[in-house]
Amino acid sequence: MARVDLNSDLGESFGRYSLGLDNEVIPLVTSVNIACGMHAGDPCVMRRTVAAAAAAGTLIGAHPGYPDLQGFGRRDMALSPDEVYAFVLYQISALAGFCKAERVKLAHVKPHGQLYNRAAKDEALAQAIAAAVHDFDPSLVLVGLAGGKLIDAGRAAGLAVAQEFFADRNYMPDGTLVPRKRDDAVIADESFAVARVVRAVQDGRIEAVDGTIIEVAADTICIHGDNVHALEFAKKIRAALTQAGVELKPCCA
Amino acid sequence: MARVDLNSDLGESFGRYSLGLDNEVIPLVTSVNIACGMHAGDPCVMRRTVAAAAAAGTLIGAHPGYPDLQGFGRRDMALSPDEVYAFVLYQISALAGFCKAERVKLAHVKPHGQLYNRAAKDEALAQAIAAAVHDFDPSLVLVGLAGGKLIDAGRAAGLAVAQEFFADRNYMPDGTLVPRKRDDAVIADESFAVARVVRAVQDGRIEAVDGTIIEVAADTICIHGDNVHALEFAKKIRAALTQAGVELKPCCA
Amino acid sequence: MARVDLNSDLGESFGRYSLGLDNEVIPLVTSVNIACGMHAGDPCVMRRTVAAAAAAGTLIGAHPGYPDLQGFGRRDMALSPDEVYAFVLYQISALAGFCKAERVKLAHVKPHGQLYNRAAKDEALAQAIAAAVHDFDPSLVLVGLAGGKLIDAGRAAGLAVAQEFFADRNYMPDGTLVPRKRDDAVIADESFAVARVVRAVQDGRIEAVDGTIIEVAADTICIHGDNVHALEFAKKIRAALTQAGVELKPCCA
Amino acid sequence: MARVDLNSDLGESFGRYSLGLDNEVIPLVTSVNIACGMHAGDPCVMRRTVAAAAAAGTLIGAHPGYPDLQGFGRRDMALSPDEVYAFVLYQISALAGFCKAERVKLAHVKPHGQLYNRAAKDEALAQAIAAAVHDFDPSLVLVGLAGGKLIDAGRAAGLAVAQEFFADRNYMPDGTLVPRKRDDAVIADESFAVARVVRAVQDGRIEAVDGTIIEVAADTICIHGDNVHALEFAKKIRAALTQAGVELKPCCA
Repeated sequence: MARVDLNSDLGESFGRYSLGLDNEVIPLVTSVNIACGMHAGDPCVMRRTVAAAAAAGTLIGAHPGYPDLQGFGRRDMALSPDEVYAFVLYQISALAGFCKAERVKLAHVKPHGQLYNRAAKDEALAQAIAAAVHDFDPSLVLVGLAGGKLIDAGRAAGLAVAQEFFADRNYMPDGTLVPRKRDDAVIADESFAVARVVRAVQDGRIEAVDGTIIEVAADTICIHGDNVHALEFAKKIRAALTQAGVELKPCCA
Repeated sequence: MARVDLNSDLGESFGRYSLGLDNEVIPLVTSVNIACGMHAGDPCVMRRTVAAAAAAGTLIGAHPGYPDLQGFGRRDMALSPDEVYAFVLYQISALAGFCKAERVKLAHVKPHGQLYNRAAKDEALAQAIAAAVHDFDPSLVLVGLAGGKLIDAGRAAGLAVAQEFFADRNYMPDGTLVPRKRDDAVIADESFAVARVVRAVQDGRIEAVDGTIIEVAADTICIHGDNVHALEFAKKIRAALTQAGVELKPCCA
Repeated sequence: MARVDLNSDLGESFGRYSLGLDNEVIPLVTSVNIACGMHAGDPCVMRRTVAAAAAAGTLIGAHPGYPDLQGFGRRDMALSPDEVYAFVLYQISALAGFCKAERVKLAHVKPHGQLYNRAAKDEALAQAIAAAVHDFDPSLVLVGLAGGKLIDAGRAAGLAVAQEFFADRNYMPDGTLVPRKRDDAVIADESFAVARVVRAVQDGRIEAVDGTIIEVAADTICIHGDNVHALEFAKKIRAALTQAGVELKPCCA
Repeated sequence: MARVDLNSDLGESFGRYSLGLDNEVIPLVTSVNIACGMHAGDPCVMRRTVAAAAAAGTLIGAHPGYPDLQGFGRRDMALSPDEVYAFVLYQISALAGFCKAERVKLAHVKPHGQLYNRAAKDEALAQAIAAAVHDFDPSLVLVGLAGGKLIDAGRAAGLAVAQEFFADRNYMPDGTLVPRKRDDAVIADESFAVARVVRAVQDGRIEAVDGTIIEVAADTICIHGDNVHALEFAKKIRAALTQAGVELKPCCA
């Protein structure tokens, strides 16, 4: 039977600033990625987010990002591989501490934003991330863009990996994402997107933006909880997968 | 045979900013407290400081502080006990990650600056720190001002504790430090200070600022490495202790 | 004819984090206080908030706070008067630059959060703020808690001052606010609060929390735009004042 | 008579962290560029640096950089032109406030580190900086790499500009700097470098790294005060220029 993990980025609030419908998203997913205080999140937010995820029995991962709160980790920042190693190790360790205090295991690591994007293409950066994860705990699962350099680096470092598929993004014929600057980067037709997720999970094949059929890996699918609309979309994906007989199960378990 | 630990606060550099003669201090001490990125230190500094201490075989502790880099954690900041718990847990976890990657154990925790000072007097704050340390790892040793509330809170939480004695500060007849605003807060006569350290360790008794004899606990003595003069003073203390037959040994071992 | 200023704290968003219904509040007030990047706000937010206020013809003030984004400037922080001077001067200057680029005048300064609270009670702090404002531009109006030390310090420094009245807070018989920890700190009965604002502006007298009649100065009234409910309350205050024949006019004009 | 400005980057300390021999450099230069709290500096440092420069009668400029204290503004960071505009306007305004309080004029703006480097090549970024400077005060002088895009953008915006020459760097035949990754990026022979500065100022021609003679503009020369060696080099440059009859005079006066 086909199976897939549904993951969501959580714990992105900071101090007085609230972001994301975390409590509504948790019941919809099988794993969560929690911000670690550099691009978003703070120690108080991390503590309560870990507690909420632990209470729901959802698997918990670290979601490290560039040290750029004002840019939310979405801007490119020229950290050297050594700097990336140190900043990633710092962040996953910090989150692991909250898991330890909550008596749950840290299960995986998924980089955030531009660190995620660059790690899909930049081999040295990907290796630095994989090394930090491995040095902290070789049993952690490394989550990255399906087919990207981070997946290769994780495997080379001896880590289990999970390949992520994007429900709402169009793909190029070569399997990469259609760049955000293009008008057709995001799928407009929600029903098409939902049906495509099921195909990705069951068949490992989807239509690229130009209609050609391409192979994709889809161990885990990212669900957004930024607003009510995103939640509705997430519910449709979850329902379609369940109806198609796909088992929802954390890949990191 | 009398024994004592010599500790020093290390890893207080940040990015381009260099602080402290870490490499010169490490050979003089038996344990180090490493800043965790909130009041000082950054992930790159933490990584290389842990590596240097590990290479020297010195015991490593976390040195968490208030989240105030500009104030170096020396300004009072009204964090609630819940906030203190989260910020301390975050920092010791982050440092522990670098220890894990370096295959050495995190041995102790000593709060920094104003967090240290308040924890000596404020019971709720002291309990929050002790709870964070205990929730992360109950085998960690908690270091605090001799006779202060943090020592009490650590014991109550079931932690081993180490009481710190200040070589260069005068004491009040009640065993507290002479406040910094007073002219006689710091001991001017270096020879007297060195001799007093030996008495504190061997007899557990020293002269208070007014000449009365008071009892002090001195499990560990803080050594400063800010400048060449501080290093010279540290060497004199070390030499005097060794000559007096005191064993220099980490209390956290 | 009685007149009063209605002011609101704006521009408290930061990067990806959105806070406050700024566009809805601007039409309701006669002056705005814009965060300056230390406790809230960032250069991009400041730029667009100044532009929005300028477009609406609302008077613009700086809203400096403690350098504590995670605590939103609401935690006490032991900055020395010299540090307060420098941090306040920095923030009002930064905001003034955006006003200059927008070809509007910076009209006033109102400290934020705990800096506001302490400035009402701490003379040295109040003087440091007043000195920073005066050194930057002696024609700026200094806004503070009615009857507080900041008003005194502003006058002593030769600045025009505006005394702020809180529509939703109960007052002690001595004219200070009922502390937030008390159950009756905030007025539960909205109609009473609205009627009391009108009395404060027209008569300069209101009922204290114990029923005694006290004198209050009310040059300006703070309006909140945090949520839809706050906006409704603001509209009621505005309507009641207008109906009572009170002129709504910036005190800083 | 030939004339040139000697400038230095100052005020790069931060809180407890001290950087640069500012007091020793000030007597050697005719203008200073003061960090504005984003890549270095803080309000207290800015205040005392402006006061020191004002007391010495040295011209004062703002030295804005990327918001990256840990990276000291030396790492590339993908701010959009709109973000750069806002961050630069914020920083020069903040510094101008300290000048205002000190009753001296802000005379010029020179971007720092990677913002400086990118502004020499990236037209949109250069225009954003020039616009921020012009919108704040069109009488400010904009300082940039000789022959770079920032000089063009400044002129196009109607600003006076000053072209900077690097005393210690080799140049490519096309007038750009030899990239730092090359072994011959920095000139090893100090006497050659000093003599070359005099030629740059007097003749506007120097030897490129391959020996070809190229034209350079040298309105201002950057002097470093990071350490004792840098100071010695600066003194030699100053002496050689004076001996050659070059007038040392701020180009921004």
